[in-house]
Amino acid sequence: MNTGMIAASLGLLLYIEAACLVPPLLVALFYGDGDSPAFIVAILATVVSGFAARARKIERHDIYPRDGFAIVGLGWLLASLYGALPFWASGAMPSAVDAIFESVSGFTTTGASILRDIEVLPKGILFWRSFTHWVGGMGVLVLMIAIIPSARANTFNIMLAESSGPSTDKFVPKVGRVARILYAIYGLITLTQVSLLFAGGMPLYDSFIHAFGSVGTGGFSNKNASVAAYDSLYLECVVMFFMAISGVNFTLYYSLFRRDWRPVRTNEELRLYFFIIAASTALVAINTGALYGSFAEALRRASFQVVSVITTTGFATANFDSWPAFSRSVLLFLMLAGACAGSTGGGLKCVRLLLLARAAKREFVKIVHPNAVYVVRLNGRAVDDGTLSGVLVFFFMYVSVVVIAALVVSLDGTDLVTSSSAVLSCVGNIGPGLGGVGPIGNYAGFPPFCKATLSLCMIIGRLEIYPILLLCSPPFWSGKRT
Amino acid sequence: MNTGMIAASLGLLLYIEAACLVPPLLVALFYGDGDSPAFIVAILATVVSGFAARARKIERHDIYPRDGFAIVGLGWLLASLYGALPFWASGAMPSAVDAIFESVSGFTTTGASILRDIEVLPKGILFWRSFTHWVGGMGVLVLMIAIIPSARANTFNIMLAESSGPSTDKFVPKVGRVARILYAIYGLITLTQVSLLFAGGMPLYDSFIHAFGSVGTGGFSNKNASVAAYDSLYLECVVMFFMAISGVNFTLYYSLFRRDWRPVRTNEELRLYFFIIAASTALVAINTGALYGSFAEALRRASFQVVSVITTTGFATANFDSWPAFSRSVLLFLMLAGACAGSTGGGLKCVRLLLLARAAKREFVKIVHPNAVYVVRLNGRAVDDGTLSGVLVFFFMYVSVVVIAALVVSLDGTDLVTSSSAVLSCVGNIGPGLGGVGPIGNYAGFPPFCKATLSLCMIIGRLEIYPILLLCSPPFWSGKRT
Repeated sequence: MNTGMIAASLGLLLYIEAACLVPPLLVALFYGDGDSPAFIVAILATVVSGFAARARKIERHDIYPRDGFAIVGLGWLLASLYGALPFWASGAMPSAVDAIFESVSGFTTTGASILRDIEVLPKGILFWRSFTHWVGGMGVLVLMIAIIPSARANTFNIMLAESSGPSTDKFVPKVGRVARILYAIYGLITLTQVSLLFAGGMPLYDSFIHAFGSVGTGGFSNKNASVAAYDSLYLECVVMFFMAISGVNFTLYYSLFRRDWRPVRTNEELRLYFFIIAASTALVAINTGALYGSFAEALRRASFQVVSVITTTGFATANFDSWPAFSRSVLLFLMLAGACAGSTGGGLKCVRLLLLARAAKREFVKIVHPNAVYVVRLNGRAVDDGTLSGVLVFFFMYVSVVVIAALVVSLDGTDLVTSSSAVLSCVGNIGPGLGGVGPIGNYAGFPPFCKATLSLCMIIGRLEIYPILLLCSPPFWSGKRT
Repeated sequence: MNTGMIAASLGLLLYIEAACLVPPLLVALFYGDGDSPAFIVAILATVVSGFAARARKIERHDIYPRDGFAIVGLGWLLASLYGALPFWASGAMPSAVDAIFESVSGFTTTGASILRDIEVLPKGILFWRSFTHWVGGMGVLVLMIAIIPSARANTFNIMLAESSGPSTDKFVPKVGRVARILYAIYGLITLTQVSLLFAGGMPLYDSFIHAFGSVGTGGFSNKNASVAAYDSLYLECVVMFFMAISGVNFTLYYSLFRRDWRPVRTNEELRLYFFIIAASTALVAINTGALYGSFAEALRRASFQVVSVITTTGFATANFDSWPAFSRSVLLFLMLAGACAGSTGGGLKCVRLLLLARAAKREFVKIVHPNAVYVVRLNGRAVDDGTLSGVLVFFFMYVSVVVIAALVVSLDGTDLVTSSSAVLSCVGNIGPGLGGVGPIGNYAGFPPFCKATLSLCMIIGRLEIYPILLLCSPPFWSGKRT
């Protein structure tokens, strides 16, 4: 384990976080709600800690896969802790557990909130709360790599540990350049959405908040009623469109940037993703038709909610907790499924569902034709057994995390729908669940041990299990360098 | 596909079923509740159908794996249909869907019931209802093989398709002999339990009913209040003991029969099974302690219910639906986990949990030591990649069946806890679930399409997915002989 390089990277990460705290400080100063001192305190604490972490001399610059996992796991824990400082120091969230929960929820783009009344908070705090979505969406460490490409270090292993989805389609060379291009595309999409929302009559401040929430697939709003507060079909459509495109693998936008259409045309995950959206929307619209009087109205509510949940954003324009059981079950399924790999969304990811279904098909073929050789393919290319077995194991671990966390949260004694949907929602980085944590509810009622468990679930889900669980395993730390 | 041999085997199966209908006919004649004509009709219909199925001349006697799956899948569907005849013909269950549901629930040893009042039914009908547990527990086709060993056919592929658990430890030679020994052990255990229950003051008739329910891990009682009706610690302990030993792999009893203690001592699944029972009992007893006043009383209720659920029997001595959320969550976990492979119980099976956990550990080791060779072992022997990948795929398919069925059942509009626990309970062959299908509830309230879906779930769960799903896949039927 290269502890020197790990500490240095974490120090660098804290510098980046301090820089990220500047825009909300400016917002706080502009609106003068009294929250600027909290940001100054947070920036100072973050810079000093970063300086301390970088005090040690770096002996080697190698970053092995193990180091990459350690940097990403610890980096996210640190970023969330320091990101909670403004919430806590400003008095907006007097409980440290609440402040950390909200910060984790922001960075992991979950959007689960412990706030009962969002609108009373100072503007700077709400800006930071949503800005964490934007920073966490593409990855705080990818941002670090984009800004400070360490020429002497193999940052690929950091990017590998932070990016989502099975490693079938990862960038190998020029990590720093790719990270910069990805962030440029990401920034461009965000600014486009801000303009479109502003043009539709949304205040500029609100436009930024909702663009961060959509493009980062986070879901924090500055309105208690979420997107429903604006009651505008145009604004809903803009938000829905940007949620949908943010659930797509960003490497496809990179291909388009290089004017290469082939990967987009042949991408099977993309097709499945849009198929699930279309099918779920149709099913929910039919099922909720009677509730909304007209099919058009049901279609409007259904499409927004389906896109919001599958992209794991969590914005709401309807109280879907009052929908019929079937529609709520569809939403639970979408929470489990999630968006595309390499997007800012969470969940299992559509490509994994594809590979799981094909692995299952292979088992059936083996029974019917015991001697046949059946190769699982994805986008026309053969998938090796290691990747496939990795996906199968990931599915088991994902379900295990949900089951174990649901057991822990159920100790609180709340109803099973609330506790289990809260866990599913947090591990999948969605935000709202059903019952007490539905779109008109929040996570305020949970005791601290549940909030801590759910915070851990959000990070485990965002980093796709391995980094956090590895940090908890002794062999990870004791093992020899490999 | 050897259709001649398949038809002949199914005909033979119907003969066996007709023979199984004789004991309940004798019980009906003895008690004279007026249900004997229904049994005579059922026996005649079954024999005639069996004769018709065997009319065709058999050209080849080979049974390939595919044929084995077809025989088992169709065999269970047929056995359940013909087994429903007495329920329907006697007027005990006027709806055909209800009669089939109850029959499927019996053979699959689920024990889910559509009856609101059990005690009003004729004694012969209730005997048959519980006797199906006993017949289905070890497997109707294993029974067929035990009684009529077809010297010229490879019945091993039938046994393989019907037995539960990953195929790491299956009998290859002398299938007929093994089947007979297994049934002899099974019968001996059953008679021992009948004697012990009778000695404890339970009426002889009730003793048979509850022995069938325990040893078959089914859970049908002839009392509305289940085992709680007797309010006897002794009887509870007897039932609990026999449920627990029926959740153990019967091949271990076969080893003991051969005076070979080694497989029992080294069996890791057995250790996990008893560890889960002990740990769950302790957790539930602590969690429900306040509810029952004394810890001893809580321990009594907790231990019985934990054993009843993990063995997938479903007897009740407490209304566990009123337990705190944590205890109910533990029971849901036990429903998913299930008993040991090769037992009469259902669920995922403990050995699969072991292998899944080890497959996950291997992925972690791969990250820490990318070049290390890590062999997954079970009971001291290496597990090959094919078996491991089969278990991983099975887990995915099991969860998928639960998710899809829960979506279908939720169309009924009942609360999500009722619908999803009903599905989990039926796929795992437990019986009671939570909410509306809890220990004091039943499945009567579901509309026919839900009952049909849940019936299918029970058979899919009992036969461990493949046979039934293969029957639904066109390539299974169209493919060339392999």
